[in-house]
Amino acid sequence: MDKESRVGAGDHRALRLWLRLLTCTQHIERNVRARLRGRFGTTLPRFDLMSQLERHPEGLRMNALSRRMMVTGGNVTGIVDQLAAEGLVERLDDEGDRRAYRVRLTRAGSHAFSEMAREHEAWIVELLAGLSRREHADLFTLLAKVKAHTLEVTR
Amino acid sequence: MDKESRVGAGDHRALRLWLRLLTCTQHIERNVRARLRGRFGTTLPRFDLMSQLERHPEGLRMNALSRRMMVTGGNVTGIVDQLAAEGLVERLDDEGDRRAYRVRLTRAGSHAFSEMAREHEAWIVELLAGLSRREHADLFTLLAKVKAHTLEVTR
Repeated sequence: MDKESRVGAGDHRALRLWLRLLTCTQHIERNVRARLRGRFGTTLPRFDLMSQLERHPEGLRMNALSRRMMVTGGNVTGIVDQLAAEGLVERLDDEGDRRAYRVRLTRAGSHAFSEMAREHEAWIVELLAGLSRREHADLFTLLAKVKAHTLEVTR
Repeated sequence: MDKESRVGAGDHRALRLWLRLLTCTQHIERNVRARLRGRFGTTLPRFDLMSQLERHPEGLRMNALSRRMMVTGGNVTGIVDQLAAEGLVERLDDEGDRRAYRVRLTRAGSHAFSEMAREHEAWIVELLAGLSRREHADLFTLLAKVKAHTLEVTR
């Protein structure tokens, strides 16, 4: 039983929608975490971090990397240390700032990430396969509205 | 810039939909966390824990409480200790098991929670107000499909 199921019938529309959104996100995230662990012995923060680096072949400074992380709960410095020890990322001196350094994927890291990313995408396809192509497009559009409005509220 | 915006145009539909779902959830969650902090000096795990107890006036055992928590990152035992010190929850011996105890809201805790819950719901209404009534219903239905399918995949 999830939290949404436990909300009584008297509760309001918006709250029920929010809990449903949260529940869907959590089901997918939990599934992905379990598969990353089972299939690759890795964690979502590690995968997330490598995924950010993969989009920046020139490397990212630590603060930019932290800001881009999608999931919370991972210690970015600790993850970089681990991945560096495994030869999957490397640190580079930053020419613009002697105190700073950039982090980027090594060739081995890039290769390992590609393999994980391919399977990760297949899991996501499977998890979202309950929707028809049309429903998929509708959901994408509705979520765009939610996203735009929440950004306005937050601004 | 959020992670979804950084996904290139060549990426696949399902991945983009998943990142959009995740982004929407995170925007709302982040906003709620900030408001709980600013308005009530509290955290989402504390609010979540009190919300679970509010649905169980007879109290919950610690393991049931942990299982019901919607957000991660909170230390349930630590939160119960804090809330007990503030007089918002109390521990009761469990008649069925001498080693176990139940936790429930005190009268003061129930009162404090009601006040927070009312405002929390108003924030959610505001955050989701970008949708018309019809779009709201459509999104609810589409997410029901996503939820049902992810549960099937996970089972």
